[in-house]
Amino acid sequence: MRQKEFHDLLCVDEAKEKFYSNIFRGTLGTERVDVIDGLGRVISSDIMARIDVPPFARSQRDGYAVAASDTFGADEEMPVKLKLSGENIQAGSEAENALESGCAVRIATGAPMPRGANAVVMVEYCNECTGIVEVQSCVHPNENVMHTGEDVMQGEVVFRRGARISSCDLGVLAAIGVTEIEVFSRPRVAVISTGNELAEPGDELFGAKIYDVNSRMIVGACRECGAIASFLGISKDDEKDIEKLLSRALEYDVIIISGGTSAGAGDVCYRVVDEMLSPGILVHGVAVKPGKPVVLGAHNKKPVVVLPGFPTSCIVMFNLFVKPVILSMCGVKEDVSARIKAKCAVRYCSSQGKHEFVLSNVVKGDGSYFAYPVPKTSGAVTGFSSADGYIEIAQDVEYIEKDEDVDVVLLSDDVTVPDVVFIGSQCMGADAGLSILSKRGYLSRVINVGSTGGIGACLRGEADVSGVHLIDAKSGVYNVGFMDEGLMLVRGYRRRQGIMFRRGCGYKSLGDFVSDDKMRLINRNGGSGTRVLFDMLLDELKDGCRREKIAGYDVEAKSHNAVACAVASKKADWGIGIYSAAKMYGLEFIDIRDEEYDFCVPAGRFQKKSVQEFVSVLKSGEFKKRVLAMDGFVVPEDIGDVVCG
Amino acid sequence: MRQKEFHDLLCVDEAKEKFYSNIFRGTLGTERVDVIDGLGRVISSDIMARIDVPPFARSQRDGYAVAASDTFGADEEMPVKLKLSGENIQAGSEAENALESGCAVRIATGAPMPRGANAVVMVEYCNECTGIVEVQSCVHPNENVMHTGEDVMQGEVVFRRGARISSCDLGVLAAIGVTEIEVFSRPRVAVISTGNELAEPGDELFGAKIYDVNSRMIVGACRECGAIASFLGISKDDEKDIEKLLSRALEYDVIIISGGTSAGAGDVCYRVVDEMLSPGILVHGVAVKPGKPVVLGAHNKKPVVVLPGFPTSCIVMFNLFVKPVILSMCGVKEDVSARIKAKCAVRYCSSQGKHEFVLSNVVKGDGSYFAYPVPKTSGAVTGFSSADGYIEIAQDVEYIEKDEDVDVVLLSDDVTVPDVVFIGSQCMGADAGLSILSKRGYLSRVINVGSTGGIGACLRGEADVSGVHLIDAKSGVYNVGFMDEGLMLVRGYRRRQGIMFRRGCGYKSLGDFVSDDKMRLINRNGGSGTRVLFDMLLDELKDGCRREKIAGYDVEAKSHNAVACAVASKKADWGIGIYSAAKMYGLEFIDIRDEEYDFCVPAGRFQKKSVQEFVSVLKSGEFKKRVLAMDGFVVPEDIGDVVCG
Repeated sequence: MRQKEFHDLLCVDEAKEKFYSNIFRGTLGTERVDVIDGLGRVISSDIMARIDVPPFARSQRDGYAVAASDTFGADEEMPVKLKLSGENIQAGSEAENALESGCAVRIATGAPMPRGANAVVMVEYCNECTGIVEVQSCVHPNENVMHTGEDVMQGEVVFRRGARISSCDLGVLAAIGVTEIEVFSRPRVAVISTGNELAEPGDELFGAKIYDVNSRMIVGACRECGAIASFLGISKDDEKDIEKLLSRALEYDVIIISGGTSAGAGDVCYRVVDEMLSPGILVHGVAVKPGKPVVLGAHNKKPVVVLPGFPTSCIVMFNLFVKPVILSMCGVKEDVSARIKAKCAVRYCSSQGKHEFVLSNVVKGDGSYFAYPVPKTSGAVTGFSSADGYIEIAQDVEYIEKDEDVDVVLLSDDVTVPDVVFIGSQCMGADAGLSILSKRGYLSRVINVGSTGGIGACLRGEADVSGVHLIDAKSGVYNVGFMDEGLMLVRGYRRRQGIMFRRGCGYKSLGDFVSDDKMRLINRNGGSGTRVLFDMLLDELKDGCRREKIAGYDVEAKSHNAVACAVASKKADWGIGIYSAAKMYGLEFIDIRDEEYDFCVPAGRFQKKSVQEFVSVLKSGEFKKRVLAMDGFVVPEDIGDVVCG
Repeated sequence: MRQKEFHDLLCVDEAKEKFYSNIFRGTLGTERVDVIDGLGRVISSDIMARIDVPPFARSQRDGYAVAASDTFGADEEMPVKLKLSGENIQAGSEAENALESGCAVRIATGAPMPRGANAVVMVEYCNECTGIVEVQSCVHPNENVMHTGEDVMQGEVVFRRGARISSCDLGVLAAIGVTEIEVFSRPRVAVISTGNELAEPGDELFGAKIYDVNSRMIVGACRECGAIASFLGISKDDEKDIEKLLSRALEYDVIIISGGTSAGAGDVCYRVVDEMLSPGILVHGVAVKPGKPVVLGAHNKKPVVVLPGFPTSCIVMFNLFVKPVILSMCGVKEDVSARIKAKCAVRYCSSQGKHEFVLSNVVKGDGSYFAYPVPKTSGAVTGFSSADGYIEIAQDVEYIEKDEDVDVVLLSDDVTVPDVVFIGSQCMGADAGLSILSKRGYLSRVINVGSTGGIGACLRGEADVSGVHLIDAKSGVYNVGFMDEGLMLVRGYRRRQGIMFRRGCGYKSLGDFVSDDKMRLINRNGGSGTRVLFDMLLDELKDGCRREKIAGYDVEAKSHNAVACAVASKKADWGIGIYSAAKMYGLEFIDIRDEEYDFCVPAGRFQKKSVQEFVSVLKSGEFKKRVLAMDGFVVPEDIGDVVCG
């Protein structure tokens, strides 16, 4: 088995240099569009005003047009009397006569100034009597007047090539009478997915197939950049198949292929790109994490990129290498994403010798923001979607200290501030509560880090609420003993825990399962509440039990559902978990005991409106109904009450 | 002339309370859309995963699937030998056999783990010989394996009602096989403009007409919020006309009328809204600047708003009162715009008793950001378009001190950092230079504050380049004498200054114009280079000249073009300005002297790449050609050279 092993990886800057110098990154022509369709587009040549705005000197107020010098000295006690002209100048109509010295003329907001007048006295400071206006306040020359061209001057460059049109810009274009503008054409991007394992969303999933994630994500990301993106389809890991799609893709301005870049047997894609295109592959592998196996190539100056199949790697590499190219083709200067300063919530060790992008959630703590690295591998699709941004770690940095200052590059345009930050153990019951809360208008953010992580987040003021189910191995009591000073515990619900297994084994107790060494266990991960319970139960077994005797004791799954799934699919024969998971996978279930899932709240946050609303949700009939509809959930009388703290 | 005078203005919070309690702000139903069309839309009900992601435990690497315990103790010097199974598990195909103890099986990234294996050793740490694999590194259980449901668990709520779909979210939806989603319907907004003075952009402008600015701007802003906005047309200030459009508008979910809210003769619109609708007007006038005359109303719980006609007031009031309503109808929680901390670059006195929104430009100075209030009145259309954001000043705050810390609420999603910040005197020549610079890939921001303001900005490190033309009244020398320590002066070009007037008056010299008291002057504003020159020339006149004798001496215009326009339109008879402006308006011109327009640069910025590029533009043939094509511009030999500093 010989494979390319990425020994000589380029660093990010070298890779960019090699890629950029072999492709054309300029704009691709221009087109004329109606102004209103120009929203969000990029202007391709300077726009010069052909008229002055306003086109004439006009009044900015309702009042009286005057010669400012005629009002000098006027105040409430000594008003100046001016002769009233018969005219009443309205917006849209021209002044008929010049203003004579010592006179005033009625004028409305937006109406043109008459010759001879150089200021407007607001109506509030005037009293009109027959043929006379008493002016109670003096005005200086130009007061309440907007001059010809004061806003935009004829000949002034109003928009420069490269400006992106916003809704306010539409107003400026209207003001100078422009109805059509010339904008840069949008680049057309072809998106191809490769991999024998890929199925189209909507199709049935069977065997070892997974749904194709990257194509939709990349199409969406291209559209967000302003490009026209088309998905050409999924190709098998087969030369002919890839060649066929790649030939079609050659008509486009940018070609993005995802998957097929692992150094494994599936690198057919890599070979096809290199053989079919000219010059073909420029860079294969970059010292970056995630995204190492990215391929950067070109065909007659046209960018061709093979993004890694793992979704997070895929989108990180898209942002790093492809997005700047597409933006530049759109005529946009490489954009600088918004950043916020935060403290790293945990110590983070980086990958040696790689430029690393660490997806992170950002929450507001006491006094500053805290960044939580998202604990997902690059194979996860949810990592990028749930993150607020990322921390960039240079190739030569080994770790980031806890509480070290970091810059978080935000992924989204606006930083949404959730009403409730929920950090702790994931549970369908808590999900239901947050869902009801959202219907009541409160936005929540959920970060699943397990019970212990949740309590830490509450202590540091980062979480408003944490879901916890921690058993004290000595006392067998849930949660209460883990409440440090400054924390409150709110009663939640109970979940039935037990042994799950496939129909027909006939065993009745934990002892039965443990003593049959043909029955393979799927265990839970260390530190999880269920694992603590399981180890406690093993110690309590009458005859004792040596863990290494249990087949599969060291095979761990990270959730109730994963345990159930492993048993249902015969990867294992039994496991410990909650009843709802067993039911979902059609497994048999033997009760062990109820687990208590409660809510921890920092004392200082308990009176917060959104937290009070969450407590009221817990006490509501709707919540009780939804939780009881889940299999094996029990709602106690005192749900929502403060248990301690 | 009796008019409503806005004596009893509500404050912003009172106005919001009164408005919001009389309208329906909820969502308006839902619709199902294809996932890819869901980009940017808001999800109307929680989306729960119906499958686990990944649906099976899979390898995260190319390598060998093993039982982790079989590798314990392995390192490069003491590799562990495992028996190689004949199978080669590929992504997309299922494992045929369970792994036996002491064995290893080839596995590719993304391939399903065989039963009995709990870890994968990366291919880089293995050597394959006939039938045997030498493992040179031990792995712990679960290493390089992603478990069933580790990414997304079946039953997990993946998106909550209210989430806005990003491109990454499209990936998550694809991963769980979702092809259609239910999203909130977009609200439909009717936009109407009113005003006798309004003309449709594209039509010819005559009389006292101006182009309708607000409708396009508001339609664009509604679209940016996610609404479907339709422009119904311009109405005259005529009851029947407004009634007709308003009847059509009643079919929409939100009605926005712009203009017609001044307390002048044009408030027909206000009466129609109050008489035709039920309950009609709720709030008329709010203690806010700009935007005081805003009208908030309702018709059977449907929001109806009359926005002020002044563009800046119009969009500020839209953002304050209407945008939150539209976003809430779209199902979006009121968004929190990005803010940055800055120091106020000048002392700013606020309007007494009004909640004020001060449009500002933000530039990066030494060590922090500086906010420049945009010196435009609410009648200006360019104010909002050119601003980076606004400072909000509470009703009871009298002023903001220079260098006081302020929060700037950003108007745009991304803070673009220009390569060159140009603060100073506006000129067509400088415009041409920046335009060439932009073609070379450098983004500039232009803030026109006049020569003196530009020099101040350079001294404070806020500007990279400033355009200046200041004459020293004593020496008659331009610019050099104004260069303080730390500033450099780069040679620019010269502009012909002279007297402009309409054909046929026959005068030949300044003395001729000054001595005819029937000839009305249009003067330049105090502090402008031209005004300094003019006053100097008056002092030099042989017979002397009393300024108050000059008709129109106190009528000021703020630019060369405004002077030319006033003369051409017979508002005045003569003025002083540059030749190009006179030519543009077809005026006669008598030379006075050339004015020197140079560029001031902070010494510390001179080596900055973009500034060097700007200097190279000045020296380029293209720039020379473009400047010489402008009437009355002279390019000296030493353009682009450092004159002093």
